[in-house]
Amino acid sequence: MSNIRTFEKPTGVRDLPPDITAKKRWVEARVEACFRRWGYREVVTPTLEYFETVGGASAIAEDKLFKLLDKQGQTLVLRPDHTAPIARVVASLLRDEPVPMRLHYHGNVFRAQDREAGRFAEFHQSGVELVGGASPEADAEIIALAVESLRELGITPIQVAVGHIDLLDALLLEQTGSSDSVAKLKESLGARNIVSYRENVKELNIPSTNREKLLQLLRFRGGYQVLSELEATTSCERALERINHLRAIWTALEDWGVAEYVIFDLSLVGSLDYYTGIYFEGYGAEGYYLLSGGRYDHLLERFDRDNPARGFALKTDRLIMASPGGLMEEERIALVYPEELRRAAFQRAHELRNQGKVVGLYKEEEMDSSAQDYDRVLHVGEGFDG
Amino acid sequence: MSNIRTFEKPTGVRDLPPDITAKKRWVEARVEACFRRWGYREVVTPTLEYFETVGGASAIAEDKLFKLLDKQGQTLVLRPDHTAPIARVVASLLRDEPVPMRLHYHGNVFRAQDREAGRFAEFHQSGVELVGGASPEADAEIIALAVESLRELGITPIQVAVGHIDLLDALLLEQTGSSDSVAKLKESLGARNIVSYRENVKELNIPSTNREKLLQLLRFRGGYQVLSELEATTSCERALERINHLRAIWTALEDWGVAEYVIFDLSLVGSLDYYTGIYFEGYGAEGYYLLSGGRYDHLLERFDRDNPARGFALKTDRLIMASPGGLMEEERIALVYPEELRRAAFQRAHELRNQGKVVGLYKEEEMDSSAQDYDRVLHVGEGFDG
Repeated sequence: MSNIRTFEKPTGVRDLPPDITAKKRWVEARVEACFRRWGYREVVTPTLEYFETVGGASAIAEDKLFKLLDKQGQTLVLRPDHTAPIARVVASLLRDEPVPMRLHYHGNVFRAQDREAGRFAEFHQSGVELVGGASPEADAEIIALAVESLRELGITPIQVAVGHIDLLDALLLEQTGSSDSVAKLKESLGARNIVSYRENVKELNIPSTNREKLLQLLRFRGGYQVLSELEATTSCERALERINHLRAIWTALEDWGVAEYVIFDLSLVGSLDYYTGIYFEGYGAEGYYLLSGGRYDHLLERFDRDNPARGFALKTDRLIMASPGGLMEEERIALVYPEELRRAAFQRAHELRNQGKVVGLYKEEEMDSSAQDYDRVLHVGEGFDG
Repeated sequence: MSNIRTFEKPTGVRDLPPDITAKKRWVEARVEACFRRWGYREVVTPTLEYFETVGGASAIAEDKLFKLLDKQGQTLVLRPDHTAPIARVVASLLRDEPVPMRLHYHGNVFRAQDREAGRFAEFHQSGVELVGGASPEADAEIIALAVESLRELGITPIQVAVGHIDLLDALLLEQTGSSDSVAKLKESLGARNIVSYRENVKELNIPSTNREKLLQLLRFRGGYQVLSELEATTSCERALERINHLRAIWTALEDWGVAEYVIFDLSLVGSLDYYTGIYFEGYGAEGYYLLSGGRYDHLLERFDRDNPARGFALKTDRLIMASPGGLMEEERIALVYPEELRRAAFQRAHELRNQGKVVGLYKEEEMDSSAQDYDRVLHVGEGFDG
């Protein structure tokens, strides 16, 4: 071994110890059951994809992709997200299935990291994709399901902020008249850099009323009434249409009984550039970031299928931290036996396990302090009743 | 896109459609619950490891490893097995934990494949490792657990064949007197090439009684009595000790009530070269290969920890094929509603889901043939009772 020590792991990857792993399993099982009851069917896609297909479609910056060559000399990537692979599956394996199609997934994704960044290179996500249909109900369904899945995990408070990428584009274009300016302003918003946004606005060569409207945009954050306030600032037909779509989503969320968890935030922009309609993020206590999702109407075209679609991904590693549930409830018993009572001990272990208990067996002379991890130590001995 | 078509996946990887994914989830959940009740705790290790640490310890031929470079210029591998990474965890994250230590895992492993080989490059395994202790009970426990996990999946018939690597080494060395010859003969056995084994034996410059004993070795396949037959052919002390260890394993398996599923097969050799004691394989109907495992006493030394250990890995993809269980039992309902009854429909969906039903919602005008996948179509309409 050269400069790598025996126990080292690559930058940004982790071992999960038993307690975290148990909670991860609980989180995933709760979320999976929730997605399933909502009619979503689970699919598994490979860890490895061609760079030319999914690598290109995934909207993750190329320097964040883990690339390797296969034995045929093709460039592969470690799956950087789930949405692009599932778009590939929808367009191939599930090509003949009718829409709306509801799918969900659970698995890891990969992003190459610089050592100093201190960020994860491999992390876990659980998510859904709802393919087909253009109705506000379809968009509202996944927002409602996002809220429901967080509630299933006992997370409180919950807030989901909803923006709209195409509406934002329309509003920015209306005031700037330049798609270069739109791109620049969106970049600042995407980086959550309000100072930079304001500076960019100041530098624009536009009338001061337009400039004022661009600065106002940051303030459109709140419930249903925000949409009317926004409507009063625009005469762009495309923007007005999108505002009405958001109104319809809101009333559907009211019918779902989840509107109380949702606010609009019209300056919200995601880091993935395939979103074309709503974009949303979900947060727990103190604004802890837990999920993101949105509408993507052109991703499937890349795979020769033409359907509007939307989905979201839960950040599993963060849910493990945020959820109060998932503690192991089974009683763990260390069953210690002398050799001559082995058969009785094995029989007793069977019975206890059938009652749902966890039983670790210890021959008396092998018994050491590892039994300390158990809730109870049971000695099989004389007078033992089996 | 150059020569890769839009939908293509790399050689040897797969998409799992909903029905297979559902069964995979069922198989893994059953097996996980079984491992857990036996006192094994789950851990997760990363997909990426350093080539210099786990890549070298994993005993997978180097040309089967998927290698890549990270941003620091280090060579990484996609995890080729689980045992070596868990050995790393036992020696680092869990260094201070006492033995015996019982751990289990569920996840994918990777082997680079030639296109013409038609083998999987990514496949799923569930397995256990029992670290510490040298008793026959510890070896017997994982054989009993292997049988139990197959029974949990309803697999029948079950057969586990048990060999012993160090015993085989001793017997081969006793008759050939040459470790080169031992290696050559083991290679033939490892490849299950009996013809090549017999030819190698014939070519050896040894007395004909020794040659006869080497050919006899292939015939030691069966229950407890095989051990006495084998004992009569050797005077090597190391071999006699190992035979007694196998006897003790057998009586422990009788106490577990699983000896009926087990046979000894003294010519059995695995493809991983870190096994030092028992090596075993499990089969279903018609000899369908389902699991392998064994004792490895020197692997942990590579990570500066010195414990005997043993474990096995279930081939999840094969269990999915072999198990008769895992069919979805929940009723799947398509709930179709006209817009004016949306709130009532959403409420009804909540209720049905709380009863454990799967409910997919369809607005009347969006309804198309996708409802055909449901067990029942329920129309929300006039006279609908909520």
